Amino acid sequence: MEILVPYDPTEPKRRLRPTLDAPERRAFAEAMLTDVIGAIDTAGQVPVVLTPAGSSLRCPCEVVHDARSLSTAVTAQISRRLTAGAPAVGVIMADCALVTPETVERFVSTPGPVVLAPGRGGGTNGLVIREPAFTADYHGASILDHRQVAATLGSPATEVDSMRLSTDIDEPVDLPEVLLHSDGQAAALLRSWGFTLSRDDGRVGVTR
Amino acid sequence: MEILVPYDPTEPKRRLRPTLDAPERRAFAEAMLTDVIGAIDTAGQVPVVLTPAGSSLRCPCEVVHDARSLSTAVTAQISRRLTAGAPAVGVIMADCALVTPETVERFVSTPGPVVLAPGRGGGTNGLVIREPAFTADYHGASILDHRQVAATLGSPATEVDSMRLSTDIDEPVDLPEVLLHSDGQAAALLRSWGFTLSRDDGRVGVTR
Repeated sequence: MEILVPYDPTEPKRRLRPTLDAPERRAFAEAMLTDVIGAIDTAGQVPVVLTPAGSSLRCPCEVVHDARSLSTAVTAQISRRLTAGAPAVGVIMADCALVTPETVERFVSTPGPVVLAPGRGGGTNGLVIREPAFTADYHGASILDHRQVAATLGSPATEVDSMRLSTDIDEPVDLPEVLLHSDGQAAALLRSWGFTLSRDDGRVGVTR
Repeated sequence: MEILVPYDPTEPKRRLRPTLDAPERRAFAEAMLTDVIGAIDTAGQVPVVLTPAGSSLRCPCEVVHDARSLSTAVTAQISRRLTAGAPAVGVIMADCALVTPETVERFVSTPGPVVLAPGRGGGTNGLVIREPAFTADYHGASILDHRQVAATLGSPATEVDSMRLSTDIDEPVDLPEVLLHSDGQAAALLRSWGFTLSRDDGRVGVTR
């Protein structure tokens, strides 16, 4: 299965500004992208990076450029592949740094016309689509919108219960998850910059 | 399988103080407990609430009192049951409000002497233990400690990748998850208090 990995290299990961400077944010975002591509590849699936037109990006896989909004571009890529005969198309966000090959395998083998992987905070971090009329909608609480889209197309969405797919790394509070649950390039980068886990009474944080 | 559900009714959910007053926090904590017990029960497993001695608690299941620390009490309960011949004992935290019967079924059917369900922020929200020498350690980043305990006992822990088990409801930022992903009593209570999802540029929040 081809799995689209949307990635915009223009000022990535702005919500990590309190913790990482601009070059670090870019390097970290690219390391997470590399980890996601690697997990897809190791799972025997085919990563395809989807990125805005004009961006220069070197990836060990096919890169598709599309200048339109994320929702429009993802919808078009899915529709084109399914109409051309692909039985299914996947999408996994580039900042799902905890994703492993096992996560990908479980995700792509989940049956259903619309399979959703919820992200923390109402997002949709993954899609497996087998219904050509599906339209992506990443604005706002996208998981609610995608459930509605599936229902409108005739059957409730199937949801995959995965911590690793639900954990997109957006904010400083997400960084401990990378150190706790990944040994990929993003985790290695954080460690090389001196980040370690800090323990207090509440949840675990990071210090540098 | 008996599944212990540790619950302390003394000032529960203090980190929700910015959002809920004390009677609301207690009612919400008990609703989450009820949801967890219900999911375990519907999954065909046996919930056993583990609570500090002296607390008065009415649950639709067995309640075991133990005045010692959470780690000591959980370790003792697991050890006693496995030594008496139970093939496995489970633990699920009482604030895992998103847990469904399907989550419980997948969790208890995961093989291995030490099966861990990581919680967000370094916690351990679930255990399935088949090794009588296992000791629980809920202090600090417990997932790291529990991995170490498993390794010391002879084999790496198995980890279950579940958003629903990883999502304990501790802080105001966690409340949207209940509204987004549960239709249980805790979600109903939040809705009855006027909580709704609010959408902004980042993750979804709640307003009242």
